[in-house]
Amino acid sequence: MAEGFSERLRDEAAQMWERIFEHPFLVEMKEGKLPIEKFRFYIKQDYAYLMDFARCLGLAAAKARARETMSAFASLLEASLTVEIEMLEELAEEIGVSVDDLRASEQTPTNTAYVNHLLLISYSGTVGEIMAAMLPCMWTYQLIGEILGGAHTIRGHPIYSAWCETYRSKEYIELVDWYRNLTDRYADESGPSISEKMRKHFMLSSRYEYMFWDMAYKMEEWPT
Amino acid sequence: MAEGFSERLRDEAAQMWERIFEHPFLVEMKEGKLPIEKFRFYIKQDYAYLMDFARCLGLAAAKARARETMSAFASLLEASLTVEIEMLEELAEEIGVSVDDLRASEQTPTNTAYVNHLLLISYSGTVGEIMAAMLPCMWTYQLIGEILGGAHTIRGHPIYSAWCETYRSKEYIELVDWYRNLTDRYADESGPSISEKMRKHFMLSSRYEYMFWDMAYKMEEWPT
Amino acid sequence: MAEGFSERLRDEAAQMWERIFEHPFLVEMKEGKLPIEKFRFYIKQDYAYLMDFARCLGLAAAKARARETMSAFASLLEASLTVEIEMLEELAEEIGVSVDDLRASEQTPTNTAYVNHLLLISYSGTVGEIMAAMLPCMWTYQLIGEILGGAHTIRGHPIYSAWCETYRSKEYIELVDWYRNLTDRYADESGPSISEKMRKHFMLSSRYEYMFWDMAYKMEEWPT
Amino acid sequence: MAEGFSERLRDEAAQMWERIFEHPFLVEMKEGKLPIEKFRFYIKQDYAYLMDFARCLGLAAAKARARETMSAFASLLEASLTVEIEMLEELAEEIGVSVDDLRASEQTPTNTAYVNHLLLISYSGTVGEIMAAMLPCMWTYQLIGEILGGAHTIRGHPIYSAWCETYRSKEYIELVDWYRNLTDRYADESGPSISEKMRKHFMLSSRYEYMFWDMAYKMEEWPT
Repeated sequence: MAEGFSERLRDEAAQMWERIFEHPFLVEMKEGKLPIEKFRFYIKQDYAYLMDFARCLGLAAAKARARETMSAFASLLEASLTVEIEMLEELAEEIGVSVDDLRASEQTPTNTAYVNHLLLISYSGTVGEIMAAMLPCMWTYQLIGEILGGAHTIRGHPIYSAWCETYRSKEYIELVDWYRNLTDRYADESGPSISEKMRKHFMLSSRYEYMFWDMAYKMEEWPT
Repeated sequence: MAEGFSERLRDEAAQMWERIFEHPFLVEMKEGKLPIEKFRFYIKQDYAYLMDFARCLGLAAAKARARETMSAFASLLEASLTVEIEMLEELAEEIGVSVDDLRASEQTPTNTAYVNHLLLISYSGTVGEIMAAMLPCMWTYQLIGEILGGAHTIRGHPIYSAWCETYRSKEYIELVDWYRNLTDRYADESGPSISEKMRKHFMLSSRYEYMFWDMAYKMEEWPT
Repeated sequence: MAEGFSERLRDEAAQMWERIFEHPFLVEMKEGKLPIEKFRFYIKQDYAYLMDFARCLGLAAAKARARETMSAFASLLEASLTVEIEMLEELAEEIGVSVDDLRASEQTPTNTAYVNHLLLISYSGTVGEIMAAMLPCMWTYQLIGEILGGAHTIRGHPIYSAWCETYRSKEYIELVDWYRNLTDRYADESGPSISEKMRKHFMLSSRYEYMFWDMAYKMEEWPT
Repeated sequence: MAEGFSERLRDEAAQMWERIFEHPFLVEMKEGKLPIEKFRFYIKQDYAYLMDFARCLGLAAAKARARETMSAFASLLEASLTVEIEMLEELAEEIGVSVDDLRASEQTPTNTAYVNHLLLISYSGTVGEIMAAMLPCMWTYQLIGEILGGAHTIRGHPIYSAWCETYRSKEYIELVDWYRNLTDRYADESGPSISEKMRKHFMLSSRYEYMFWDMAYKMEEWPT
């Protein structure tokens, strides 16, 4: 059977995704050796990222034609701001980061660049473009959950194990499947001009995913 | 005590709101005499309106700064697309309008003009502007619920009674209070240029509320 | 040769366009009999419309990919705010409407609905959608110029003659040709979902064109 | 006399601006020693930047209330896409970069981050916010023109001299003055919430200006 749109994009991004999976941040997490301050740095940045990711879901809900799609984005938005945020807040607390700390964290250059890329597409683009731009985040996290969670070495680290179980859950896997199928459908009914934009957004978001892990590992700062 | 922003706007719109409350559509509803085909027409238009109103909530969620405000808009959006839509679908079924009919209804000129006004502000304006534009809908419905629901004449008409009970509920009244307070806070931290825009949006939406009832009463059609 | 996208849309809108060309406003103009106060009313509304039409050109310039297209929209925007606005200001002065009057005119319900339709698409849609929504205005004016300017009866009325000469000029005809070709190209590279939106926008704008003439003839007012 | 809004922002950004003026890229340019390949790299990136800067002007024109402000943005947009672009194209040709090369250059990570920041504000913010975000580019270039153009060391390098003369011209200085005054006026009529956003945008754009010079000096590339 022919590959769908999202599978073709994944193939094209394969090298960048490989660099993600082999990034020291994730390799050290898998081995339970990642210094906790790097993970703390990551969680704060991820929290701020999630808030802007949620904004994009609000824009996608506003732009979707079909009522079912609108509802799906509205549910994802609601879940992002409740279940997912709370999951991060609990995890953060266990590693000594208070909710106030989480909320006060300033986004790094890479985080800012990534969310502005997503938000700009969400304001100016079509629903298919928004979906394609957000897909690398959702999909690589599923694969990271698989890779890390499957390793016995991570089990000695309750925090890192707990973190990656989220992305191995049945619910998360079903969510990504649904999301990919919907992205494929949007691509199918798009002409060459929009589907080329979708491809570019996906590739750039894949780069930003890599850069995000690298930023966390290097505990990136703004020039002052 | 000095009046808040929303109260001053209501005072300025008082004449137009009076025309709403005295419109034959609502007077005949209160007396239980409104022909059911006019109400059927209204419900179909209100259903289509609610879908676009929900889009505006998605945009407001995307634009809100504070996490609490984002969450509040996200919950309202989620509720609009579940509880409120289902309430309308049930009511519609009781008067012989199927869900398919509801979804297939084309928006009339007045409905189109009203939702495009709201959506344009939601795309191009600030959160305070979005809130001010949406307020006349929320607030006049509370007052309509009060006026109609308090009349003994409507009780003989189970459909019309049921409809207006929604807007007399404790939850709805609390929602409108919260919404007005938040609008007031946005106005307080706005300069003269934005608060003047908020005032204009509120006035135009008040006109559109009147025109919406009039459109339903006259069962407005597009020129062909 | 097969018809292009814009020609198919024109065919589909033929009946509505016919109603435009036969509207008393234009018929009486052609015969030189249109009461000047109706024309005065029209010019004020058209002036306000042109300002918002120009905003849409700014948004189209912002969204266009190719530099040539960006430049074309930028030139049109610049021309709208200089040449075209000045042409209207001069014409207005000849019929006793000062520039201050022009600028102070409030948009009628129909004008407001029409420009909000155009602006909302310009904020939320693709360049192809913006172009399709703006096309009925540009194209019907060319045809009106042809129909009215060709009639000997209008020649006795220097104002009405002068007005319609603008839309009969070689420059205007070339502009519309270029614009139609570009719209066709956008449609060609769009998938079914966007080209269906383009079609709907064109049809709604055609309705609004009819309603605009009708609004001017009836000197429409807001409910108070 | 009290300082205006833009002067207060400049004071707050003073340290970052100092880092710009002392960046090796500009110091070596002033001394006529900057390797031409770094300048070539810069010109390609600046060309791509200018295209997106022009898009922001289109959005500002669309959002401005007063006709005069709309016209001013429209003229700037038109000028960006003609005079300024052509100036860059001529300069590029003299250093062996063809127009095709210019147009084909991919934006670096820093350039992408900067223009997405400007474009996102242009889509989602107020005119005052757009102006504040664009101001550090316009204003620091005036000061760079002053600093570099005033040095006798640059005169031996005709290309670098020619480049900085643009930003020392009477027209450019008047443009920046007008732009600053208008930004101040927008700030004056803004409430604390919008003027705080304006401040943040200005600070972030100041950082991006620094990072832009640094990116050009290091001939930044995307991770692959």
